[in-house]
Amino acid sequence: MSIIDDLVTSLTDAVGAAIVVTDPDITAGYRQDWARDPNAGTPLAVVRATSTADVRAVMLWATEHSVPVVPRGAGSGLSGGATAVDGGIVLTTEAMRAVTVDPVTRTAVVQPGLLNVEVKAAAAEHGLWYPPDPSSFEMCSIGGNAATNAGGLCCVKYGVTTDYILGLEVVLADGTVVNLGGPRLKDSAGLSLTKLFVGSEGVLGIITEVTLRLIPAQPPASTVVATFTRLSDATDAILAITRSLRPAMLEFMDSTSINAVEDAMKMGLDRTAAAMLIARSDSPGAHRTEETETMAAACTAAGADEVFVTDDPDEGEAFAAARRFAIPAVERTGSLLLEDVGVPLPALADLVQGIAKIADARGVVVAVIAHAGDGNTHPLIVFDPEDADMEERAHQAFGEIMTLAISLGGTITGEHGVGRLKKAWLPDQVGEDVMELTRRIKHALDPAGILNPGAVL
Amino acid sequence: MSIIDDLVTSLTDAVGAAIVVTDPDITAGYRQDWARDPNAGTPLAVVRATSTADVRAVMLWATEHSVPVVPRGAGSGLSGGATAVDGGIVLTTEAMRAVTVDPVTRTAVVQPGLLNVEVKAAAAEHGLWYPPDPSSFEMCSIGGNAATNAGGLCCVKYGVTTDYILGLEVVLADGTVVNLGGPRLKDSAGLSLTKLFVGSEGVLGIITEVTLRLIPAQPPASTVVATFTRLSDATDAILAITRSLRPAMLEFMDSTSINAVEDAMKMGLDRTAAAMLIARSDSPGAHRTEETETMAAACTAAGADEVFVTDDPDEGEAFAAARRFAIPAVERTGSLLLEDVGVPLPALADLVQGIAKIADARGVVVAVIAHAGDGNTHPLIVFDPEDADMEERAHQAFGEIMTLAISLGGTITGEHGVGRLKKAWLPDQVGEDVMELTRRIKHALDPAGILNPGAVL
Repeated sequence: MSIIDDLVTSLTDAVGAAIVVTDPDITAGYRQDWARDPNAGTPLAVVRATSTADVRAVMLWATEHSVPVVPRGAGSGLSGGATAVDGGIVLTTEAMRAVTVDPVTRTAVVQPGLLNVEVKAAAAEHGLWYPPDPSSFEMCSIGGNAATNAGGLCCVKYGVTTDYILGLEVVLADGTVVNLGGPRLKDSAGLSLTKLFVGSEGVLGIITEVTLRLIPAQPPASTVVATFTRLSDATDAILAITRSLRPAMLEFMDSTSINAVEDAMKMGLDRTAAAMLIARSDSPGAHRTEETETMAAACTAAGADEVFVTDDPDEGEAFAAARRFAIPAVERTGSLLLEDVGVPLPALADLVQGIAKIADARGVVVAVIAHAGDGNTHPLIVFDPEDADMEERAHQAFGEIMTLAISLGGTITGEHGVGRLKKAWLPDQVGEDVMELTRRIKHALDPAGILNPGAVL
Repeated sequence: MSIIDDLVTSLTDAVGAAIVVTDPDITAGYRQDWARDPNAGTPLAVVRATSTADVRAVMLWATEHSVPVVPRGAGSGLSGGATAVDGGIVLTTEAMRAVTVDPVTRTAVVQPGLLNVEVKAAAAEHGLWYPPDPSSFEMCSIGGNAATNAGGLCCVKYGVTTDYILGLEVVLADGTVVNLGGPRLKDSAGLSLTKLFVGSEGVLGIITEVTLRLIPAQPPASTVVATFTRLSDATDAILAITRSLRPAMLEFMDSTSINAVEDAMKMGLDRTAAAMLIARSDSPGAHRTEETETMAAACTAAGADEVFVTDDPDEGEAFAAARRFAIPAVERTGSLLLEDVGVPLPALADLVQGIAKIADARGVVVAVIAHAGDGNTHPLIVFDPEDADMEERAHQAFGEIMTLAISLGGTITGEHGVGRLKKAWLPDQVGEDVMELTRRIKHALDPAGILNPGAVL
């Protein structure tokens, strides 16, 4: 037997044959997440964990044999955080799907494989709401959401994933299972380890259970849609809105993304607009009308061509769905490099204008959509994968946009995580001292470096 | 010269004589925080930092000379987190008081010595609000709030300190200054180091600047006050309220604390009541009336003797002030051991009843006040400091109440921190594996153990 066969046999012995997959036709589907990292490795095996005990068994075995483990949720990550490494294990939690909601403490205890949309549904059965809403909410898992500190559209008012995580069960590199936090709104006992694991992208431990804070169901929302001939009028309107109130959603689409969505969905969007804003208020009662009026007036004052207000939830949701569909719609026009840069709000106009300059200079199309209310943008760099020169220019633009965001006091990733695709830029953002601090913590928790090697660090 | 004189001379040379205090009459005031730890040591010197550079200079010097450093904010801590250690430095940040508010990004950049009430005032100048409101908000500092992940009365709806911290500047044990996070609502770049330092009680680094998220000013609030003959009716009412809505405040006082406050303030509280609840709604417009009606009805249905509703902010605030005054009021009746135990809400009645049993068994008075809406209680154990036997029984009750909270799935500290007074119980709550994880992180960041030794760990 080869060394590889020996390893697989020992893995099967350790964790049980039922959850070990080595069929290359199947494991091939676990080499990449949605970032489609071309440098993805070929894993030794995929393990489909069904329980915390399975995850623990994998880590005990991996520590003994010094085999790297790449944890994976739904595989919808956009930064290559779940890219397989050669000779490693891909440990998928997709089969761990239990959920229990306690309406009295307003918490949910969830296994990592449950999809975000399923968590929302379980909460809704009790009249409760789990707010974070990545655009991929129908296909991303809560484990991945926790591991990347995922965001979404409502975060401008309701915060991001970490704001809703009260407790975690985590399996450490050496197989130790730790329970952190719990169903308590307040807990100052010991270090904030729960929060340390949120957004740690699998490099410190594997999240096997999440205790989530839930809030009362979102009240009905009204939606404001505004189109602008000039991009700078739209960014002016964004600042005017956030200065006067806290919208429940404030999304931005540029001309390229408007047209890509209109091509795909034929919903009558204004193809001539330079930018479109979609804003929401979900304040109770008459206050909602006040807020939509304020937002509509801010758009008009900033020079909007057309401003439309609807109290019909379905009509409003159609526009949010159009915004969410922008990434797949733009992807129909070519391959994508997907950015996630964010800046403090006053720098948003500079960022959007700077991106346009980079696109011009590199001769590539960059569609821009944004969670505008919190300064988090998703420039989508489009390239023809058959055109090597264009692909190279697209990659240059990818780096330049991150460098631009950093120069504006921003971040290379607002909600997707660093993964493997953005790690070269992380030191530029946080500085060498913070990288050293990061390495010290990584080394303290995973001295052999077997947890998701190559991600973040 | 003695070794001590040599050390002080070298400290003065390193950080400047202007900020080094060795006058024993002054340093005596820095030996203890409000926990009044009888085992407090005598520091070598107190350093009054005026800048991050001062803090850095102290840590460089302390690392070189292996001298322990106890960071201190306003000294209002209740767990002995800032108790001086023999031969160490007490590093106070009380003179670092700068604040800048940016209304566009809705953030404030604040030095650690500014008081919570001053942060609120600076935000209010721009129509903004910093929610966390420890009862000590007029005398506690934002640095201490960050270091303990402080809570307060409004946290039941608005969350705790960590939910408002977007960025930190921290000086590490070796004098390295790191900048973590920043004025961005979303940032998934690298490990969540900002959140790790929140609640770390000075054992990982010294917080020298905080970037806070602010929100629009709180709308006017209405207040519901209800008194109950039976304690269990009050806890029933708490569950009924939190099951149906999210109050902006939901406070509890027992008979002992009601009477202590009434003795001090003569405001006409019902001395015969077994319990009093003070609840608030700050929802906009008509929704507020709906919520106060729902809360009042829940109290009546649970068996309240009297239910009083007021839309007058001053009148409502008088009751909140009465609740805040409970600790000093009870303290007039004897020395206090102050608990901060929290439990998941359904266990609140068991906790309160269990505390009464412990008080009976130990023959001590335990007054109970609580941030009832989030299950965080402050049992106040009263003893006569001249009565050594009673003091011993009070200490036994102190431990037994924490053990009770742990047995109910709760925490030994909801918002005050572990400090030195509660650290013996921390392993019982979090388990040995989490303690080991905690030690690994502590060792990675402070290998010589000079940062606040004896606190938490």
